[in-house]
Amino acid sequence: MNDEKAYHMTSEEFRRRGREIVDWIADYWGRVEELPVLSRVKPGDIRAALPPHPPEQGESFDAVMKDVEETILPGVTHWQSPNFFAFFPANVSAPSVLGELLSAGLGVQGMLWATSPACTELETHVLDWVAEMLDLPGAFRSTGAGGGVIQDSASSAALTGLIAARERTTLFGSGEKGCDGLLVAYASREVHSSIEKAVRIAGLGKKNLHLIDVDENLSMRPEALQQAMAEDRSRGLKPCFVCATVGTTSSNGIDPLPAIGAMCRREGLWLHVDGAMSGTAALCPEYRHIHQGLDLADSYCFNPHKWMFTNFDCDCFFVADRSVLIRALSVLPEYLRNQATETGAVIDYRDWQIPLGRRFRALKLWFVIRHYGIEGLRHHVRRHVALAQGFANRVREDPRFELAVEPPLNLVCFRHIGGDGINQALLDRLNESGRMYLTHTKMDGKRTLRLCVGQTYTEARHVQAAWRLIRQTADDVEAEG
Amino acid sequence: MNDEKAYHMTSEEFRRRGREIVDWIADYWGRVEELPVLSRVKPGDIRAALPPHPPEQGESFDAVMKDVEETILPGVTHWQSPNFFAFFPANVSAPSVLGELLSAGLGVQGMLWATSPACTELETHVLDWVAEMLDLPGAFRSTGAGGGVIQDSASSAALTGLIAARERTTLFGSGEKGCDGLLVAYASREVHSSIEKAVRIAGLGKKNLHLIDVDENLSMRPEALQQAMAEDRSRGLKPCFVCATVGTTSSNGIDPLPAIGAMCRREGLWLHVDGAMSGTAALCPEYRHIHQGLDLADSYCFNPHKWMFTNFDCDCFFVADRSVLIRALSVLPEYLRNQATETGAVIDYRDWQIPLGRRFRALKLWFVIRHYGIEGLRHHVRRHVALAQGFANRVREDPRFELAVEPPLNLVCFRHIGGDGINQALLDRLNESGRMYLTHTKMDGKRTLRLCVGQTYTEARHVQAAWRLIRQTADDVEAEG
Repeated sequence: MNDEKAYHMTSEEFRRRGREIVDWIADYWGRVEELPVLSRVKPGDIRAALPPHPPEQGESFDAVMKDVEETILPGVTHWQSPNFFAFFPANVSAPSVLGELLSAGLGVQGMLWATSPACTELETHVLDWVAEMLDLPGAFRSTGAGGGVIQDSASSAALTGLIAARERTTLFGSGEKGCDGLLVAYASREVHSSIEKAVRIAGLGKKNLHLIDVDENLSMRPEALQQAMAEDRSRGLKPCFVCATVGTTSSNGIDPLPAIGAMCRREGLWLHVDGAMSGTAALCPEYRHIHQGLDLADSYCFNPHKWMFTNFDCDCFFVADRSVLIRALSVLPEYLRNQATETGAVIDYRDWQIPLGRRFRALKLWFVIRHYGIEGLRHHVRRHVALAQGFANRVREDPRFELAVEPPLNLVCFRHIGGDGINQALLDRLNESGRMYLTHTKMDGKRTLRLCVGQTYTEARHVQAAWRLIRQTADDVEAEG
Repeated sequence: MNDEKAYHMTSEEFRRRGREIVDWIADYWGRVEELPVLSRVKPGDIRAALPPHPPEQGESFDAVMKDVEETILPGVTHWQSPNFFAFFPANVSAPSVLGELLSAGLGVQGMLWATSPACTELETHVLDWVAEMLDLPGAFRSTGAGGGVIQDSASSAALTGLIAARERTTLFGSGEKGCDGLLVAYASREVHSSIEKAVRIAGLGKKNLHLIDVDENLSMRPEALQQAMAEDRSRGLKPCFVCATVGTTSSNGIDPLPAIGAMCRREGLWLHVDGAMSGTAALCPEYRHIHQGLDLADSYCFNPHKWMFTNFDCDCFFVADRSVLIRALSVLPEYLRNQATETGAVIDYRDWQIPLGRRFRALKLWFVIRHYGIEGLRHHVRRHVALAQGFANRVREDPRFELAVEPPLNLVCFRHIGGDGINQALLDRLNESGRMYLTHTKMDGKRTLRLCVGQTYTEARHVQAAWRLIRQTADDVEAEG
């Protein structure tokens, strides 16, 4: 045996095992709707089934795949089940998985243009495509002063936007001098928890995140924002950053971008818009109203890894002025200097994100767009919205249930009229049944169920079955009442 | 055609295309050593070859793969080439790629234990294995007060450590109140640029990152650290965080952990240790001296995605007291509440990292460890060190060259004795040749070449050929004088 290849898997075995796993995945997608959506294991079950010590000698791949099937799979909550209606979806597709596989095989690290020009240029290019597909404002394209980049998540995108905002507000001193305890960020009470996390990480402090009241549609009230800013300025604070949301996590509320954006322009605040799931809807002209006013934003993100058939992680983050971002995040040590960077003619995406290293994530997004075409993506988004709206109609027709809010797209917030106890019991039983998985929120102080339609393989029959199961389970809970 | 499956790739096509890509990768790994390591494309070349607009209709996968071959591949800098000696490696292996593929196919989102118990428990378990494999201090195991988590990169690990340090130093007020401009972080002048980035992101400000002098081995001088802390305290500043490095990026310098650690304990500072590449060496008992004093650290990270055959991203981050981390980063909105979290019996890894969402990255690390076994991993690490040390011997024997520093492990810093001009010419020509790729740094103010051996498929013949090419190229450059 060649000493230098001693323990590596042979090319032949890799080909064979690769086929096995591809087939395993295809089979899994075929059978996943039969599996209990929410894993039924108890805390510690998985660990108890694993050997306490790592293997001294290598093991056969058969043993590994046996453990995947017997130990790992029962501990999986099946995000790819067509009966997954919880949180926001994280829908994957065959072309996306193929792109991820290719990316892993190439194994490039795209921190600098020079460390793989294709990794950078395909990303810039595909993000320009995405901006076109969603009809985003021209400022977000790389052909102007802005451009797009793939982040791991909307959390990281918001943090990146906040860091840029902080830098611009202090006239480019925050990176040098640090926070002074005076910068204030704003978002609605319905904003995602990642904004509080970002504000804490960036050193503004949670007390300087001011949460603004919402109206009856759970959208931010611009006049309340205006008032908060004025009060903060009068107290000597420095309003810096606003996060507006297009499709809040809790209820799919949409903040009024035109009014908020105008205010941010007037007052010199950075406006970040988070369209994590719902941004995808803008593929379809009839839903593009959700982005009205986006031309007033400094940054925007949405997640193809939620509702655009691209496996996690893939958040598309756009900025209108990339120079601010780069000034906020660039550090250039000697060992990263290179000719291409010195020319200034290239993008080094390390300066557009928190970490230094980065995978070739544009491949999977490119594969998805090319496989489906705009037409195919639109088709499936429309189907999901139609299925959710159909479900909302069933809720409307049933006197035992009510909608908590009118569903704008593919998320339906509803509840049994019998109160929190019955809704909690309903939620627990539905999830314990294994036949569907949905999550909850609080709206008007009431326990409210959320049903989100966005899984790749969800069809009408799954949504119909979910509704039947909800009604039957309500019967049972009421009967025991 | 079923309207709901209309545009999805069929199961049959996925199986076929999956096999194609697996074979493409196997072929790629076979031919990559013949390809120019550093891509030769010019800025804009890749984009110019791509259609300006996204496709309205979906395209065939054959067209996609044709573009991968013809357009993307020439724009790839081949990190998986056995002739890649630049930066630090990002070595992948067959079992790792298979794990990444399986993770993509399962498509789970592991933000909470409940959203896939196996994703969390396998990660905790495998990181305990890793702690055992590297003989890390017991405090870093999940069985005590600490534990491990997979981050995307050492940059994010350092930032996470810094956030926890900030929180503990302010007695858990930094998340609430924000930074006050007084917290100070320390690292040696040789520290990775990610520390400056973290200090900027976290709001401490670059001016509050105090860089400490190094000795002749480019290791931090503890007495200089002691002095800096004392001066800072006398000025009313609050020393908070030290990053020590085990194997600096520039020169593989190793900071003296016992002295630094004792000082941090005494003064109440958080000690983070960055072993990004070199930590892997601790698989072998004979190299474990690099971690002497690690029992005094609060957090530690190293990257299996650098030198342990696990494709990017996979950084293993360990903390001695997980409660600090969780208090620093936990935000629990209503829509993430769940029974398992309420019991307190489970880990929710979202509280151990910057973003909320996370992939099932433990799978690939588990696959790698099980395939190679500790024995196999050790074997290949030892081979890499032996190859680098052999190269260093050739440098020592050649009067035209000198070692810039004694190489402790697998990174050799060397230069032609003829000065910066000749070394720059050498670097440029070697990289333009396409036959190898190495990068540079500055040491003692002099341009210095770095040759790092750690690529999965690098064998003795590749290192020997590199040395021959370096000498021939030096002949040419000298002749043109």
